[in-house]
Amino acid sequence: MQSYLQNQKLQPIWKNYFCLMADSNLIYGHHPVAEAIRAGKAVEKVYFQQGIRGDMEKEFRHLTKEYGIPLQVVPREKLNKMTKGAHQGVVAYLALVEFQSLEDVLPFVFGQGETPLLVLLDGITDVRNFGAICRSAECSGAHAVVVPQSGSAPANEEAMKASAGALARIRVCRVRSMFSTVEMLQESGVQVVATALSERAAPVYEADLTLPTAILMGSEGEGVHPKLLKMADAVVRIPQATDFDSFNVSVATGIVLYEAMRQRLMMNDE
Amino acid sequence: MQSYLQNQKLQPIWKNYFCLMADSNLIYGHHPVAEAIRAGKAVEKVYFQQGIRGDMEKEFRHLTKEYGIPLQVVPREKLNKMTKGAHQGVVAYLALVEFQSLEDVLPFVFGQGETPLLVLLDGITDVRNFGAICRSAECSGAHAVVVPQSGSAPANEEAMKASAGALARIRVCRVRSMFSTVEMLQESGVQVVATALSERAAPVYEADLTLPTAILMGSEGEGVHPKLLKMADAVVRIPQATDFDSFNVSVATGIVLYEAMRQRLMMNDE
Repeated sequence: MQSYLQNQKLQPIWKNYFCLMADSNLIYGHHPVAEAIRAGKAVEKVYFQQGIRGDMEKEFRHLTKEYGIPLQVVPREKLNKMTKGAHQGVVAYLALVEFQSLEDVLPFVFGQGETPLLVLLDGITDVRNFGAICRSAECSGAHAVVVPQSGSAPANEEAMKASAGALARIRVCRVRSMFSTVEMLQESGVQVVATALSERAAPVYEADLTLPTAILMGSEGEGVHPKLLKMADAVVRIPQATDFDSFNVSVATGIVLYEAMRQRLMMNDE
Repeated sequence: MQSYLQNQKLQPIWKNYFCLMADSNLIYGHHPVAEAIRAGKAVEKVYFQQGIRGDMEKEFRHLTKEYGIPLQVVPREKLNKMTKGAHQGVVAYLALVEFQSLEDVLPFVFGQGETPLLVLLDGITDVRNFGAICRSAECSGAHAVVVPQSGSAPANEEAMKASAGALARIRVCRVRSMFSTVEMLQESGVQVVATALSERAAPVYEADLTLPTAILMGSEGEGVHPKLLKMADAVVRIPQATDFDSFNVSVATGIVLYEAMRQRLMMNDE
């Protein structure tokens, strides 16, 4: 149990923690943005002006792809509003967190003799839910929260606040594709346990969460992507006593993380 | 298990009750409004956004017709003015909460042969947390959420939205004093299980939640009142794998409710 309990104390994860006021996490202009990306700064998203073609477009398409940063093409007016200044067609938001590479995190966790516990978020766009999930993940000793590059809540100040600061401690890994991430995890010996509302799914307490596990949570509206559900090693549900809607996704994630903790603690007590 | 699962269907909780003061009768958002109507809540009128077509329009035309509720199509601006928030195209005027008497609820639950599961909230003032707790309580088949008359979050529109409509279904009992309520519950054969952050408290899964149980949750800042902690039949904690802060109170409540469901389901499976 010792190593499981202490996994967060093994190394200082966060070096550059930007506590940013107002829009100080916003940079703009061709060179500033390009340099920030090349310098390996944690960039949340790049906004690129509609209609700009040629070398500059090529450069930013290439850069964002290489560094795994979402790029959104927007009208010039939106950039004007963001910056109130000369944006030269490109604006970037710096992330509050420094994204980690799952390919680095996983061998590290195994190397420490710990049993991986990961949270994969498929389409969680609500900032408060994302923050609350990071808080629960940190309390539960999860080793990382994994989000896809696009279609995820931003790791911004509101998320930080909802996380009660946990976002500055928990590892956040941003991946290009959830599909290849699930494959990679399975090849690495980590079972992927997806949650669903379906009555046919087994109750979560019947799954063995003492194994190396990645919990896969979907959005409240859509749930986990059907293809990911098919790929998962197990599909579980949180029991409900009524037919009412469902648990809030951050509460549901907290419940699954608690169940993993319970099983692991009881195994260690035996 | 049957009676436990069906406890919400036993009686119509909501009668006609209109409170037209101070916007406490206004709810908005696709799911909150639809759930409130389906729950048989007295709805005065539904305001629906001009131009919204498809499944959502069909759903609300059908629902309002079925329940005999006037539906008025209005410009988006009118909904914006009413709500100052994300209404998702639909707003309803209705009475939010008709408080129930715990003295009535308890004999009724026992009379149905059910094992009471109650949630007592001591000083939860955050509206979103209150709503999220009501949502979890409804999903878990809890028989009521008990709040003190003063120092509680209002059962307003924001709480309704955060509850995804559960506030229109779950019984809410407002009591004058938590101290005398705890006494009354204990005299009625309901154990009061308080949660605390203290390491000395037993992990929640060691408590027997298959007994008639009232879960007592405190505020995140203050926790459960020391005098109430002393009165409680058991004090439990949710395990944590790190020393980080604690779970959000609505997540923590969801976890304890899940643990109660898990124990009760497993007992019935034996």
